[in-house]
Amino acid sequence: MTNHTPLKFDSLWLGANVATMKDGRYNAIEKAAIGVSGGRIVWLSESKNLPEYQAQQEHHLAGGWITPGLIDCHTHLVFGGNRAGEFEQRLNGVSYQEIAKQGGGIASSVKATREESEIELIKSATRRLKSLMADGVTTVEIKSGYGLSLDSELKMLRVATELGNEQPVTIKRTCLAAHSMPPEYDDKDAYIDYLCDTVLPKIAALGMADAVDAFCEGIAFSTEQVARYFKTAASLGLPVKIHAEQLSSLGGTRMASSFKALSADHIEYIEEADVIAMAESGTVAVLLPGAFFTLKETQRPPIDLLRQYGVPMAIATDANPGTSPALSLRLMMNMGCTLFALTPEETLAGATIHAAKALGMSDTHGSLEVGKVADFVCWDVESPGELSYWLGGNLVKKRVYLGSE
Amino acid sequence: MTNHTPLKFDSLWLGANVATMKDGRYNAIEKAAIGVSGGRIVWLSESKNLPEYQAQQEHHLAGGWITPGLIDCHTHLVFGGNRAGEFEQRLNGVSYQEIAKQGGGIASSVKATREESEIELIKSATRRLKSLMADGVTTVEIKSGYGLSLDSELKMLRVATELGNEQPVTIKRTCLAAHSMPPEYDDKDAYIDYLCDTVLPKIAALGMADAVDAFCEGIAFSTEQVARYFKTAASLGLPVKIHAEQLSSLGGTRMASSFKALSADHIEYIEEADVIAMAESGTVAVLLPGAFFTLKETQRPPIDLLRQYGVPMAIATDANPGTSPALSLRLMMNMGCTLFALTPEETLAGATIHAAKALGMSDTHGSLEVGKVADFVCWDVESPGELSYWLGGNLVKKRVYLGSE
Ligand SMILES: [Zn+2]
Ligand SMILES: [Zn+2]
Repeated sequence: MTNHTPLKFDSLWLGANVATMKDGRYNAIEKAAIGVSGGRIVWLSESKNLPEYQAQQEHHLAGGWITPGLIDCHTHLVFGGNRAGEFEQRLNGVSYQEIAKQGGGIASSVKATREESEIELIKSATRRLKSLMADGVTTVEIKSGYGLSLDSELKMLRVATELGNEQPVTIKRTCLAAHSMPPEYDDKDAYIDYLCDTVLPKIAALGMADAVDAFCEGIAFSTEQVARYFKTAASLGLPVKIHAEQLSSLGGTRMASSFKALSADHIEYIEEADVIAMAESGTVAVLLPGAFFTLKETQRPPIDLLRQYGVPMAIATDANPGTSPALSLRLMMNMGCTLFALTPEETLAGATIHAAKALGMSDTHGSLEVGKVADFVCWDVESPGELSYWLGGNLVKKRVYLGSE
Repeated sequence: MTNHTPLKFDSLWLGANVATMKDGRYNAIEKAAIGVSGGRIVWLSESKNLPEYQAQQEHHLAGGWITPGLIDCHTHLVFGGNRAGEFEQRLNGVSYQEIAKQGGGIASSVKATREESEIELIKSATRRLKSLMADGVTTVEIKSGYGLSLDSELKMLRVATELGNEQPVTIKRTCLAAHSMPPEYDDKDAYIDYLCDTVLPKIAALGMADAVDAFCEGIAFSTEQVARYFKTAASLGLPVKIHAEQLSSLGGTRMASSFKALSADHIEYIEEADVIAMAESGTVAVLLPGAFFTLKETQRPPIDLLRQYGVPMAIATDANPGTSPALSLRLMMNMGCTLFALTPEETLAGATIHAAKALGMSDTHGSLEVGKVADFVCWDVESPGELSYWLGGNLVKKRVYLGSE
């Protein structure tokens, strides 16, 4: 037997159970203790196993469940204006065509985003970000894609960066310049040329994006166009993600898998071959039930095939002004269960460890394990399944970011 | 011209627009001022029309929209335990039958509610109530119905009363003793006899309920049984409400209309004759999209018929542990739009003035008019339609109950 000097913690969290989400399962530890130092987890086990320790702060939680901080791996959180007016018009019987004629739809978000200052964009996005954070989110991916020009895409990415500087949350920035066609272009190939020749190189040189994304769909860009754009991204050292197979099957997911895409998102229309390609490339399936719900879609993503081939499934809000004005990731977990028949354990993995993988950060985030970042939430619940069970409500007892409340 | 002495207000609220919801429409007043005295609205118009006044407190809201405090007119907010475990089992492939064999379903809520103390029931319901309140609710109806015996129904109604005493919210209590069959009875008529002979008279004598409700459905009570129970309620001077036509068409709504029911709730399966009966009796249609969503139903209530005959439509959470674990009325407003194609103006009327009517309190609550109670919410939105547009999130800037924050 050796003599131990006491373990030293900046903070120690006691009195709750932990769903670690290691390997995508609850892997629960009841009556756990989490020791944190330097913003990392340095000790995690049942509290009865605690050796001698010294903790600068000791937090007694008096019940509840701790999970990893939630990770929202697909949002369009920064945008000008909002489209509540359109939402209301449509429900009052105005047709999509009429709204488009008035300059509505994504064009109106592009116009408003281009017009607003960074300060205005930060202000409105902060409100939305705080809603996500209040519901237990500690990491948020934010896409550009309402700028569609070098300057305005950079503006969006600067706003996303600033949000991460201002708020206790980790922001991952994704360049989605290939989201839609800007009004000043009428040739899709010419716009893709501009992105490959000018926009992506500049954004990469400035270090303003952690990944590159595209919308591959009949109403957006073809598989060939996106492949060209991904090739440029890859040559610049940027990982890729894709919006694909949401409304039809164009092969975008398979193409993206050939680029070892971090994730393929929406994917209601993928087939077995696509799932196999994703499994081989380690691409995460990001499911977006908020958009499915809002658009009243009926084609569900092939959950059983994704399970069968072991493709990790993430869940995200897709927070955006048109097709998913969603400000609660936990609500998306409920919708993942109710609409897609995922289990509560799958949706929690989808909002933690698999979401981390979709952002290329699962080595440090997404599960509670010694060595990982101390982002976690203590919830006022009796089982982790309650996180997916309740529709709305506030269940957060404590939200801990980098080891601090 | 006469000389005016200055108007005196306990508090004056300035700097926001108001959707008054008078007559069920926005009836908006831009740049409004609301003067409050003694917990009532005593002045309401554009602030530029304000005469000379003295206000003890002046609140400058700096933008946003004020609406009446939201009214959740159908909840089962008090219950023992929760059914997240069942929710999770079902998604993991356990059949309804197997869960029922384990004592699951409503029977498990009855068992837990009977076993828990008033203090335990208050504690868990308070958490849920606070979620509703944080989302802008100022009046909540709470039903009994997990007791199913005189003592345990009274216990639930005492808990509901106490919640109203403890929290800044108005609670309306509904006796739903005819919710389900208690385990100690096997004859439905005998249980209805017990309710008519013992339970309702005692609850009425004690003044513990503001209304009486029943579940009229094949799996619960027949139209004839409910009619007998309603006859007793009417003889005791208690207004009635009904859960009807949720899963099938039994004529419960029409029967309830003959008792001038305050509301008929769910009513997915009503037909034109039912709607006509409701219109004639002034019965409110209470729509419950959270249950529709959770149960993955496909038969929508006949919105166009309800509109055609001018039946007021309310929206509520149906907050309950089995079929609608909903803790946000605003989310129900979104679902009313998305699932039932209501307009945002209809859903806001449904959560305010029509909900007040469903509780028999529209003379004092549910719209912002001089003389009415000063329950209102200032929302951080640019249009009242945003309340139905966002999925989740926290939009409340100020919640004012009886004139106080
Ligand atoms: Zn998206
Ligand atoms: Zn109900």
